[in-house]
Amino acid sequence: PDTKLPKVGTTIFTVMSQLAAEHGAVNLGQGFPDFPVPPRLVDALTRAMQAGHNQYAPMTGIPALRQAIAAKTERCYGWRPDADTEITVTSGATEAIFNAIHAVVRAGEEVIVLDPCYDCYEPAIELAGATAVHVPLDPATFAPDWDAVRAAITPKTRMLMVNSPHNPSGAMFTAADMQALIDLLQGTDIVLLSDEVYEHIVFDGARHESALLYPQLRERSFVISSFGKTYHCTGWKLGYAIAPPALSAEFRKVHQYNVFCSFTPSQHAFAEMITQEPEHYEQLGAFYQDKRDRFRAQLAATRLKPLPVPGGYFQLVDYSAVSDLPDLEFARWLTVEHGVTGIPLSPFYASAPAGQRLLRLCFAKNEDTVNRAIERLSKL
Amino acid sequence: PDTKLPKVGTTIFTVMSQLAAEHGAVNLGQGFPDFPVPPRLVDALTRAMQAGHNQYAPMTGIPALRQAIAAKTERCYGWRPDADTEITVTSGATEAIFNAIHAVVRAGEEVIVLDPCYDCYEPAIELAGATAVHVPLDPATFAPDWDAVRAAITPKTRMLMVNSPHNPSGAMFTAADMQALIDLLQGTDIVLLSDEVYEHIVFDGARHESALLYPQLRERSFVISSFGKTYHCTGWKLGYAIAPPALSAEFRKVHQYNVFCSFTPSQHAFAEMITQEPEHYEQLGAFYQDKRDRFRAQLAATRLKPLPVPGGYFQLVDYSAVSDLPDLEFARWLTVEHGVTGIPLSPFYASAPAGQRLLRLCFAKNEDTVNRAIERLSKL
Ligand SMILES: CSCCC(=O)C(=O)O
Ligand SMILES: CSCCC(=O)C(=O)O
Repeated sequence: PDTKLPKVGTTIFTVMSQLAAEHGAVNLGQGFPDFPVPPRLVDALTRAMQAGHNQYAPMTGIPALRQAIAAKTERCYGWRPDADTEITVTSGATEAIFNAIHAVVRAGEEVIVLDPCYDCYEPAIELAGATAVHVPLDPATFAPDWDAVRAAITPKTRMLMVNSPHNPSGAMFTAADMQALIDLLQGTDIVLLSDEVYEHIVFDGARHESALLYPQLRERSFVISSFGKTYHCTGWKLGYAIAPPALSAEFRKVHQYNVFCSFTPSQHAFAEMITQEPEHYEQLGAFYQDKRDRFRAQLAATRLKPLPVPGGYFQLVDYSAVSDLPDLEFARWLTVEHGVTGIPLSPFYASAPAGQRLLRLCFAKNEDTVNRAIERLSKL
Repeated sequence: PDTKLPKVGTTIFTVMSQLAAEHGAVNLGQGFPDFPVPPRLVDALTRAMQAGHNQYAPMTGIPALRQAIAAKTERCYGWRPDADTEITVTSGATEAIFNAIHAVVRAGEEVIVLDPCYDCYEPAIELAGATAVHVPLDPATFAPDWDAVRAAITPKTRMLMVNSPHNPSGAMFTAADMQALIDLLQGTDIVLLSDEVYEHIVFDGARHESALLYPQLRERSFVISSFGKTYHCTGWKLGYAIAPPALSAEFRKVHQYNVFCSFTPSQHAFAEMITQEPEHYEQLGAFYQDKRDRFRAQLAATRLKPLPVPGGYFQLVDYSAVSDLPDLEFARWLTVEHGVTGIPLSPFYASAPAGQRLLRLCFAKNEDTVNRAIERLSKL
């Protein structure tokens, strides 16, 4: 039929979660923790409701939360954004990505994305009447090829979208990548959208290369993060965008008429949590590194070959020793026949590399969940 | 500067709330209750968090909430939408309006709006690359002029947006209006967007003329409502859209990549509240009628002349006996000099009727708040 988004179907995360539920599979697909939210957060949210913080928040977010984000940003990246003009609280990172695109990208323009990429990027670009230009990451290491990005730039290029730590691969930008990015964008008017929702889930002492660390980048960027990944509450749908005042002003015009403002009580809860318990986000890398290491050790008992995981909470596994099925079929087969659900990579690509046999498994799970998955996977 | 939304400034609600705060004015501007959320809701939300409902909800909303909305709709309007294919939970009515427009309206098309109208309609239409065509309501009664609407239809008309009970006037569609609307749309492919967020705030025994009551309308409509108005929690940002399966499918494509899903714990809380305490929404009209009547009686002590209020929680007052200032200036003057904040009507218009001297006052307030406002207004 004649629709505005003919290519859009149901997202793979919903498809696989439903299939997992139907078959009683262990769900390592859609990325969400199955352990509790920090008790202080639940408690602070409850107190906020009881104190009557139940009406519209200011459109940009409550001041206490924007101040807390500013202070935390300074702590983490040595630079303090202005809470009034540079930080906007959103209903999750997804809304922030949608707004940033709609704020600056016009019909007929182009947005460069690095494949594989998160599946909300392209539909949002298309709704803005623009075109996504796909540049592949290295199929083995998921490192960016900056020369290929440079070659993809045209006079119509309005935005470049990047994501580190990277979903689905866990790959992380290096300092050399950031320098290449600076060089690439210099002298252009391309806006950078840096999706950094896994900023605190980094391993082995690596530094998260935030665009906020580099003045030449942050002056032209929307840097987007989310509390869902950091605080184990993906269903709370609160995130934010940091951008210079002129970009923030355009962003807020869209936000103002898209959702206007976000759930008020959780804003109070996060303002308290970030300020009073910074050890939570400081220790998050170690918390997940432990989960990663256990999971990888257990995978040795299976015929799935784990790829390196520098950051994020996903483990890519090469299943070519087990099956020659394309990844969508393999993911379905593994759910139906073996009771374990992962996410195939091909939906993250405009055109996936031929013969790629990778599945994404989420390790943001209880030991018990992981043990049940491994028990099943070891029978492959 | 060269921006995508050059006409968009800060919404009048934010402007007036800030001015009220600066001057310690009694804020009867932005529409929000200053009394508590029903205790059961706060309690149910807390229990949902404690029970671990903190991860992504299904994209369309949790089944229990969609079922509760379906049952309530049947109770109220004698027709039961299908919870799976016709109801989508959103992050407030504002997101629902934005999605509905983006789901069906294409660049170059036209959307008819009836002025005065809520200020998020036109920017959302413009972001979709379309044009808002403004048809005025009667300046005295705020009744629609269906002949004028018919005359505004062109081959490019894709959507008609209506709102009853009406913000800012409180006017309500009659059964004759609904018949006129049916006749008007028959034989066209115009989609109706019916914003019914004040559906339960209706007075004097009148029936809310929902588009859902009429098969010829609901088969071509997005009907949008919100829990914020009904449950005194405008900051909880949860709403929904009811539309036939084909329209809902397009709507969900936008929602999926705009916010993906909405705050999970409150979905559990509303599912419980709607089902277990239907008397809340059944008695809401009487609850607010009492507030309306007291407020109107008290206004007799002032030189502001109240217009009729058939529904909603706003009282329009004619201030021409007090001042000849245009409404934006009057609203500012009243805040600064007399410590009472209302909302001027001109931001709700593409071009406001010359000489209109009306201010909108919100009576969703405690007796105490209203008493303080009246005390100040009686000095005018
Ligand atoms: C919005 S559902 C997808 C969650 C997620 O970020 C992922 O699994 O990659
Ligand atoms: C989103 S702030 C405006 C609230 C409201 O609905 C109104 O005051 O009309």
